[in-house]
Amino acid sequence: MAETSKNRKDRIDTLTNLGNNLYKQISKGENPYITVPIRGLSNVKYSEEKRILTLGSGVSRRYFLNVGHVRKFVQTVAVASLSKNLIDSDKHTSLRDVFYQLRRTIPGTKIDVVDDQTETDKAIEDLELVTDLTREQLHITANRAGAVAGDVVIEDRGDTIDWSKMGSGGWAIPSTTEDIDFKSVKAKFVIYMEKQAIWDRLNEDKTWKKLNCVIIASQGQATRGIRRLLQRLYYEQKLPVYVLTDFDPWGFYIYSAIKFGSIALAHASEKLALPEAKFMGLLAEDIEQYDLKRHLIKFKDVDANRLKQIKGYDWFKDNKAWMEEFNRMEKLGAKVELNAFTAKGLSFMSEHYLPDKLKEKDFLD
Amino acid sequence: MAETSKNRKDRIDTLTNLGNNLYKQISKGENPYITVPIRGLSNVKYSEEKRILTLGSGVSRRYFLNVGHVRKFVQTVAVASLSKNLIDSDKHTSLRDVFYQLRRTIPGTKIDVVDDQTETDKAIEDLELVTDLTREQLHITANRAGAVAGDVVIEDRGDTIDWSKMGSGGWAIPSTTEDIDFKSVKAKFVIYMEKQAIWDRLNEDKTWKKLNCVIIASQGQATRGIRRLLQRLYYEQKLPVYVLTDFDPWGFYIYSAIKFGSIALAHASEKLALPEAKFMGLLAEDIEQYDLKRHLIKFKDVDANRLKQIKGYDWFKDNKAWMEEFNRMEKLGAKVELNAFTAKGLSFMSEHYLPDKLKEKDFLD
Repeated sequence: MAETSKNRKDRIDTLTNLGNNLYKQISKGENPYITVPIRGLSNVKYSEEKRILTLGSGVSRRYFLNVGHVRKFVQTVAVASLSKNLIDSDKHTSLRDVFYQLRRTIPGTKIDVVDDQTETDKAIEDLELVTDLTREQLHITANRAGAVAGDVVIEDRGDTIDWSKMGSGGWAIPSTTEDIDFKSVKAKFVIYMEKQAIWDRLNEDKTWKKLNCVIIASQGQATRGIRRLLQRLYYEQKLPVYVLTDFDPWGFYIYSAIKFGSIALAHASEKLALPEAKFMGLLAEDIEQYDLKRHLIKFKDVDANRLKQIKGYDWFKDNKAWMEEFNRMEKLGAKVELNAFTAKGLSFMSEHYLPDKLKEKDFLD
Repeated sequence: MAETSKNRKDRIDTLTNLGNNLYKQISKGENPYITVPIRGLSNVKYSEEKRILTLGSGVSRRYFLNVGHVRKFVQTVAVASLSKNLIDSDKHTSLRDVFYQLRRTIPGTKIDVVDDQTETDKAIEDLELVTDLTREQLHITANRAGAVAGDVVIEDRGDTIDWSKMGSGGWAIPSTTEDIDFKSVKAKFVIYMEKQAIWDRLNEDKTWKKLNCVIIASQGQATRGIRRLLQRLYYEQKLPVYVLTDFDPWGFYIYSAIKFGSIALAHASEKLALPEAKFMGLLAEDIEQYDLKRHLIKFKDVDANRLKQIKGYDWFKDNKAWMEEFNRMEKLGAKVELNAFTAKGLSFMSEHYLPDKLKEKDFLD
């Protein structure tokens, strides 16, 4: 369903076409314009069919010869040109650096192309919408975090990297996981977790070896690089993806963003979301089954409010199993951390909880 | 000057001796006690001789048979026992997990060993002071972040890891860099930088290959794992360490913490600080020389205040070069980001700035 990586040539063609179209308009003496899909909540909807957040069909035209439009028009074209050069030279740059690269005065004037990073950030988002390419495909990178281990060999920038031989550290997941090649994938599934400390434990226990899986952690929300990596491991390598978080509204939302996409990045859902991801806990039933009740942490207002918000999301409200889960959490008025398992022994999670879950295929969808 | 890693046996001996001493006191019918150095600013001082922050000689005794002491006494002993088991079984655990592992009720009573993580955190700090072992040496890990690349081969947990073959990601730096073995170190020096995006650029440019160095980044403050790694690369492998940050008070403080240690971790300075680290910019003179003036970012109050604080630190106030630098920054009333170099071309920093600095040995000490 989701696309595989558009290759470099396709991406350059897309950007070249954008320029050619403008050139044609100008040659014909027309007022050149770019068609930009409308962003923002008003144009974001949940697609029942695709099971992801998507942008609606609203578009607007941005004209060069329009005092209200010209600045954004020029900035979008400038980013497109920069991005084409990046792809041509196979270099990548950060959001902050794009700002500095476009910060110049238009010759013969006192007008700067950009004054502020918010302008380039917006121009980049617009270019994503116009070209249907992600920031990463445009060679503009996001913040990164996280590590991976497992029986997988990749090739990246000419290096062969064996994720099963990374010691205590793991391979640091880059901002862009768009262009790594999978050379050998012996692992059978993926566990993504929100906490690096849990990953460290599973790595030290060599859980990924025992269960024959890939383990991936960020620290909090999954980065774009991780989300794209999960998607590629699923669609290209057919590895089921399981999400492991605390029993709390924030953990549930981390799962939600991986699975359905996020509101802010609705336009990029097809390249980032993974509706086939499943949740492997913590769930209310686990608290019962593994006797974690003494480790309940009472909700603060902020937790209760977040849970209420999540309950109201379109993509959850027809899902009976999840609504039941939310209600159980609401009734408990408390959360539980994955770390609570260590009270039962340092390796309880890798030796009991995870194998149990996998054996019973006890996942929430 | 700084110690190399105490080996496992030494660490176990230290903990066993702690227990044996208590046992002896009890056998003799004495009230058992532990001697704990006093923490806190009142007992922190800057050592002119060692050029690091250290703890003074103040100590206090913590008795078992003392209603005000007994809880902390028991918690410290409980952490010592847990830590010995961790080292014995060659496992590591996080601060949060230590709390869960010690959260139990004392048999025959309704009293819990710990109620809150702040209690175990403090007990761990006390144990560090009592044993003169760092948290990492006690197998209790801190948060981690960051990546490394360069012509170095290490062995870690049975894996041979070549930092020069890590693609776009790098090797993810673990919480504990205490036990990695350096197998082959061809790189000649280390550049540590605060920004992952700068690291990504230097890595993509293969700057570490061209300059034959190791590049290390965190995101913001260097983690304990990174600080220990820098220290080991310097003391054990004789690689000079250069710190690369923005021209702003926060960047200067990142350098300060790496070099002199931090107030909160003064007791661990000897195992974390690196007084031989040097600063390779950004400096006020670089703004002149590389014509970065258009990229000055005006100070906010918070920046000006932070600068004032740093100027007042004991370890800077007799350093003429640094005081001059602080005064220049104060006069400019502005900061400049490393990213500003990208305005001169994406690879300007790797192709011009860094080689220039290294050639002219233009470092602040």
